[in-house]
Amino acid sequence: MNTVFSNIIENSKKYTAQGSVASYIPELSKANPNDLGIYAVSLDGNEYFAGDFDKKFTLQSISKIITLMLAIMDNGEQKVFSYVGAEPTGDSFNSIASLEVKSLHKPYNPMINAGAILTSSLILGSSTEEKIERILNFTKKLANNENISINESTYLSEKATGDRNRALAYFMKSYNSMEGNVDEILDVYFSHCSIEVTCKDIAKIGAVLASDGILPWSGERIVPKEICRITKTIMVTCGLYDASGEFAIHIGIPAKSGVGGGILSAVPKKMGIGVYGPALDAKGNSVAGIQVLQQLSERLDLNIF
Amino acid sequence: MNTVFSNIIENSKKYTAQGSVASYIPELSKANPNDLGIYAVSLDGNEYFAGDFDKKFTLQSISKIITLMLAIMDNGEQKVFSYVGAEPTGDSFNSIASLEVKSLHKPYNPMINAGAILTSSLILGSSTEEKIERILNFTKKLANNENISINESTYLSEKATGDRNRALAYFMKSYNSMEGNVDEILDVYFSHCSIEVTCKDIAKIGAVLASDGILPWSGERIVPKEICRITKTIMVTCGLYDASGEFAIHIGIPAKSGVGGGILSAVPKKMGIGVYGPALDAKGNSVAGIQVLQQLSERLDLNIF
Amino acid sequence: MNTVFSNIIENSKKYTAQGSVASYIPELSKANPNDLGIYAVSLDGNEYFAGDFDKKFTLQSISKIITLMLAIMDNGEQKVFSYVGAEPTGDSFNSIASLEVKSLHKPYNPMINAGAILTSSLILGSSTEEKIERILNFTKKLANNENISINESTYLSEKATGDRNRALAYFMKSYNSMEGNVDEILDVYFSHCSIEVTCKDIAKIGAVLASDGILPWSGERIVPKEICRITKTIMVTCGLYDASGEFAIHIGIPAKSGVGGGILSAVPKKMGIGVYGPALDAKGNSVAGIQVLQQLSERLDLNIF
Amino acid sequence: MNTVFSNIIENSKKYTAQGSVASYIPELSKANPNDLGIYAVSLDGNEYFAGDFDKKFTLQSISKIITLMLAIMDNGEQKVFSYVGAEPTGDSFNSIASLEVKSLHKPYNPMINAGAILTSSLILGSSTEEKIERILNFTKKLANNENISINESTYLSEKATGDRNRALAYFMKSYNSMEGNVDEILDVYFSHCSIEVTCKDIAKIGAVLASDGILPWSGERIVPKEICRITKTIMVTCGLYDASGEFAIHIGIPAKSGVGGGILSAVPKKMGIGVYGPALDAKGNSVAGIQVLQQLSERLDLNIF
Repeated sequence: MNTVFSNIIENSKKYTAQGSVASYIPELSKANPNDLGIYAVSLDGNEYFAGDFDKKFTLQSISKIITLMLAIMDNGEQKVFSYVGAEPTGDSFNSIASLEVKSLHKPYNPMINAGAILTSSLILGSSTEEKIERILNFTKKLANNENISINESTYLSEKATGDRNRALAYFMKSYNSMEGNVDEILDVYFSHCSIEVTCKDIAKIGAVLASDGILPWSGERIVPKEICRITKTIMVTCGLYDASGEFAIHIGIPAKSGVGGGILSAVPKKMGIGVYGPALDAKGNSVAGIQVLQQLSERLDLNIF
Repeated sequence: MNTVFSNIIENSKKYTAQGSVASYIPELSKANPNDLGIYAVSLDGNEYFAGDFDKKFTLQSISKIITLMLAIMDNGEQKVFSYVGAEPTGDSFNSIASLEVKSLHKPYNPMINAGAILTSSLILGSSTEEKIERILNFTKKLANNENISINESTYLSEKATGDRNRALAYFMKSYNSMEGNVDEILDVYFSHCSIEVTCKDIAKIGAVLASDGILPWSGERIVPKEICRITKTIMVTCGLYDASGEFAIHIGIPAKSGVGGGILSAVPKKMGIGVYGPALDAKGNSVAGIQVLQQLSERLDLNIF
Repeated sequence: MNTVFSNIIENSKKYTAQGSVASYIPELSKANPNDLGIYAVSLDGNEYFAGDFDKKFTLQSISKIITLMLAIMDNGEQKVFSYVGAEPTGDSFNSIASLEVKSLHKPYNPMINAGAILTSSLILGSSTEEKIERILNFTKKLANNENISINESTYLSEKATGDRNRALAYFMKSYNSMEGNVDEILDVYFSHCSIEVTCKDIAKIGAVLASDGILPWSGERIVPKEICRITKTIMVTCGLYDASGEFAIHIGIPAKSGVGGGILSAVPKKMGIGVYGPALDAKGNSVAGIQVLQQLSERLDLNIF
Repeated sequence: MNTVFSNIIENSKKYTAQGSVASYIPELSKANPNDLGIYAVSLDGNEYFAGDFDKKFTLQSISKIITLMLAIMDNGEQKVFSYVGAEPTGDSFNSIASLEVKSLHKPYNPMINAGAILTSSLILGSSTEEKIERILNFTKKLANNENISINESTYLSEKATGDRNRALAYFMKSYNSMEGNVDEILDVYFSHCSIEVTCKDIAKIGAVLASDGILPWSGERIVPKEICRITKTIMVTCGLYDASGEFAIHIGIPAKSGVGGGILSAVPKKMGIGVYGPALDAKGNSVAGIQVLQQLSERLDLNIF
C-alpha cells in the first residue's frame, strides 16, 4: 500500500513546476517549491506516507475548519450561523464587495477570510492569549501531537501585512456584523493561521473528521457528530477557495487547503489525508497536491458522490 | 417502511402553509399549495410513496440536470466546461451582474439560468424540434415512462414572460460566450422547463443517478459513471439555488429543486427520491419538501458527509 | 479668427496617431483615422472652420442628446426622469451590472446605452417609422439641413451586432423598467445612431443648445429653455462616457461624443462647435478631437467654471 | 435684496420638516432640525443674509474641497490625480465595492470618502498636528476668520464611530493605493471634518472659489486659478453625493454639501453662498437648503448652463 502512495508522489512531482510558493509574506516564500509529501491515517488503524511528509508548514486557511468547529462547540450552531452564512460563493477568498452589496452584510461562509475572522471573534476566552491557547490546545488534541506550536515569525509577518484583513474586519464592525476589538480578533486570526504542522498532523485531524468526531487512536469523542458533518459539508462546497466546485467534481473528497501548501482531507468513515506541496496555482491551492489527491481518489475509489 | 414515508408527509404537511406557489407565470400559480407527496425508488428494487405522489408538475429547474448530462454526453466534459463553469455562486439564479464583472464572462455553473441556457445551446440536433425531442426522449428513458410530455400552456407562459432569460442569452451572445440563435436556444430551454412529471418520474431519474448511470430496472447503462458523479456533485454545491449550502449542511443529499415544486434527490448507491410540494420559500425551494427530505435523511441516515 | 482654428487643427493632427477607429461594426472601421476637422457657429452670426469639416460621419451616441430633448418635449420632464435617472456613473456606457444591483433597476442617466434605449422608447409616434421620421426631422431642424439622412448600411451593421443592446433592453423589460416591443425600440435606437452628419451639422445643433433653444439663424424657438439646460448639464456630467469628469475639469464645456468620431459642444450663450476625428481613445472618445477642444477652450476662454 | 433672501428662507422653512438630522454621531444629532440660514458674499463687495446664518455647524464633507485644493497646491495636479480619479460615480459616498471591482483600485473622485481620505494623506507636514494645523490655517484664510476652530467633541465622536472609514483606508493600503499610517491619516481626516463654521464662513470660501482664487476682500491670490476651476468642476459633478446630477440639472451651481447641514456654493464670477439646514434627506443633503438654492438660482439667474 505504501507503494501506491510512493508512486503517486513520484507521478505528481512534475506538477510542482507549474506553481509557485506564496510570496505575500516573506516566511511563506522561503518554502521549497519542489517539496511534495503525503500522510494518510485510516480509521482501521493503518498509516501510510511518502515524500516530504515530515516537512513543517503553517496551517494558514486550513485553520479555518478548526476554529469553525471550536466556535460551534463554544456557541452552538445557531449562534455561529446567525453571524456567518453557509453558502458557497464564486468570489475570491478576500473579497469585500459582496459584504457591501448583499443586504445582510454577513460573510457568505466561514471559509472566506471575512467569515473566518468572524468565527475567530466567537472563540471563547477571557483574554486574547487564552483564546489562542484554546485553539492551539484543540489543534494538538485533534492532531494527537503535544509539540505543535505557533511559528512566531510567520505570525509577525501576517500581522505586518494584514491590511486587507483589517479592512474586512473594520467593514464588518461598521455594519455591526461583528463584535469585539479588531486588533485583538486579528491577533487570534493571525495566530491560528501561523500554527505549524506536518502532513501527519493534518492527516490525523482529517481522520477525526472522517470518524465523525471520535479520536480513532483512543475512541474518545471530542467533537459532536453534527459539527463534523457541517464542517465536512462546508469543506466540499467551499474548501478550495473558488476552485471548490472543480475539486468536488473531479476528486469528491471533503478537503481544505491553505496557502502554506497543505491540503487536509477527510474521507467519511475511511481516512484522513494530509498533503503538502507549497507550489500553488493561481487560486492559491497546491498544484501538485491536487494531482496527488485526484490520483489517490481514483486509485482507492474515495469519491463520495 | 411505507409508514415511515406516510408519517413524514403527515409531520411536514403543516410547513406548506409557510410558503406560496410560484406566481410569475399563470400556469404555476394554479397549483394547490397544500399538496405534498413523495416517491422513492431504492436500488435494491423497492418503491415507497406517500401523499400526493401522483400529482403532475413541470420540471422547471430540475430539467437543468437532465440537459447537463445530455450536453456532456453530446460534447464531452471538456467542451461543456469550456463554456460554463463548475463553481457554486452566492448570487441568485437569474443574476446577470457577475457575467459582466467576472473576466471570463462565462456562467458560474450549469444550475443558474445563464449556465442552463448555455447547456441547452449545446444539445445536438439538426433542428430545434429535434433537440427538444432528444431531451424529452432522454427524460422518458431516465424516468422509465413513455407518457411524459411537455405541458404546452406552461411552455407558452414561459415564452411570454421570458425577458430576463432573453437578456441573459443576448448578453452571453454579445460576449461570444454562447453560439447559436437566441430564440431557438430559448425555445429548447423553455420546452425542457415545461416537461410534466410526477414524483415517481423524478424518483426514477434520481435512482439512475444513484446507481451511477445504470437503469436499476433493466441493468442497462445509459449515462457514463463520470457524468453521473459530476452531476451529483453539482447538485450538492448548486442544486437548491442560493440555499444549496444550508441544504447540504443539514440534509447532505445531492438534490435539485424547481419552482414547479419538485425536488429530485439521488442518494449515492442507495435510492432516488422525488418530492413534490408547490408552496415555495423565498429562495424558490419547496418549503415542506425540504422538511420531508430533512426528516428522511435523519431517519434513514442518508447524509453522505 | 479662422487662423486660430487652422492652427489648432494643425497642432492637434499628430494626436490622431494615438487612437484607432471603432471596429465593432464594419462601417465605422472604414473611416480615415487621420481625419480631423472643426466647425463653429457663434451666436453672433459668425462661422469658422478648418480641416476635414465636411467629412460625413454617423452621430452614434451624439444622437442621445437629440432623443433626450425630443423625449422630454414629447412626455414632460417628470415622466422621462421617472424612467431614467440624471446621475452620472463611473460605469462604462454599456454596463448592465448596476441595473441589477441598484434597487430601482432604472438606468443612471440618458447618456449610457440603457438610458438612451429608454428615451428612444418614449418618443411618440404611431409606428416605428413615424418615430424615426420625427427624430430625423427634429435633427434636420436643429442642424438647419434638409439633406440629413440615415446611413442605411451603418444601420444594418448596428442591428446585426446589437446583442449587447438587446440584452440591456430585455433586462429592463424583465423589470418592467421599460414598455414597448424590444425589436421596435431598438430599430428606433439603431436608426438615430446611424444619422449621417458633418461637423457643420453638429455645430449648428450645438448653437441651438448654446442659445437655450432658439435657432440663431431665424430666431425661432424650437426647444424650451429648461430642456436645453437639462441637456447641457447632463452633457457636462455624462457626455464623454467615463471620461466626462476629466473632460469637464480640463475643458469645461458641455459636450457629447460618439464612436463615429464626432464631438458636439455647446458653449452657453456663445457658440456651438462640431469636431470630427474618428481615431478614438480607449474610452471611445476622439483622441485628437479632445485636444482640439482643450486648445480652443484655453484660447477663447470657453471654460464655464 | 436682503428681502429676497428673507423671503426665500421663509418659503423654504417648511421643507425642514421633511428631513432629519444626522444621527450616526451624537454631536450631529444635537442640531435643531428647524434651523435654516443663508449668507451670500458677492464679488462686488456686498453681503446678504437671512435666517439662522450665525449658527455654528461642522464642515463634514464640505472640508473635502478644502483639502483637495491644499493637496493639489502641495503636490501638483498630476500627482494628486495619479492617486485619485476625477470621475463622478453613481455609488454612495462610503461605498467600498467599486474599489475592489475596478481594475485600478483607486477612488473615483475626491468627494467620496475613500478619495477624501486619500487627499488627506497627501497634505504636507512633518507631523499629524502640523498637517491639521495647515488645513485649519488654510480654512481660516479662505474664510477670513481667525476664530475658526475644531469642535473637539465632534472629532472624538467621528473617531469613535469611524470603522467604515478605517475599512476604506486599510483597503486602499492593502492595494498600495495609499501611503502612510492609517490612524494618523484618519486623524487628519476626522479633524478637518470637525472644523466648526457658520454660513458666513463658507460663503466667504465660496466667494474665493467664485473669484478664481483671489480673496475678494483684499485682492490677494491664495489659490491658483486652475485649481479653483478643477474644484468647482468636481463640485458640479460630485458635490452632492449621488444627488449631484439632479442638483446640477435643476440648480446649476457648483456646490458641496456636508452631513452637518451646510452647503457651500460658488457662482463663478458672481458670489459665494453658504446655506445651513441640518435636516437632511435620504442622500445626506440639507432638504431645505436645496430648496433655498433652487429658488435663489431661479430668482437671480445663477444657473451656469
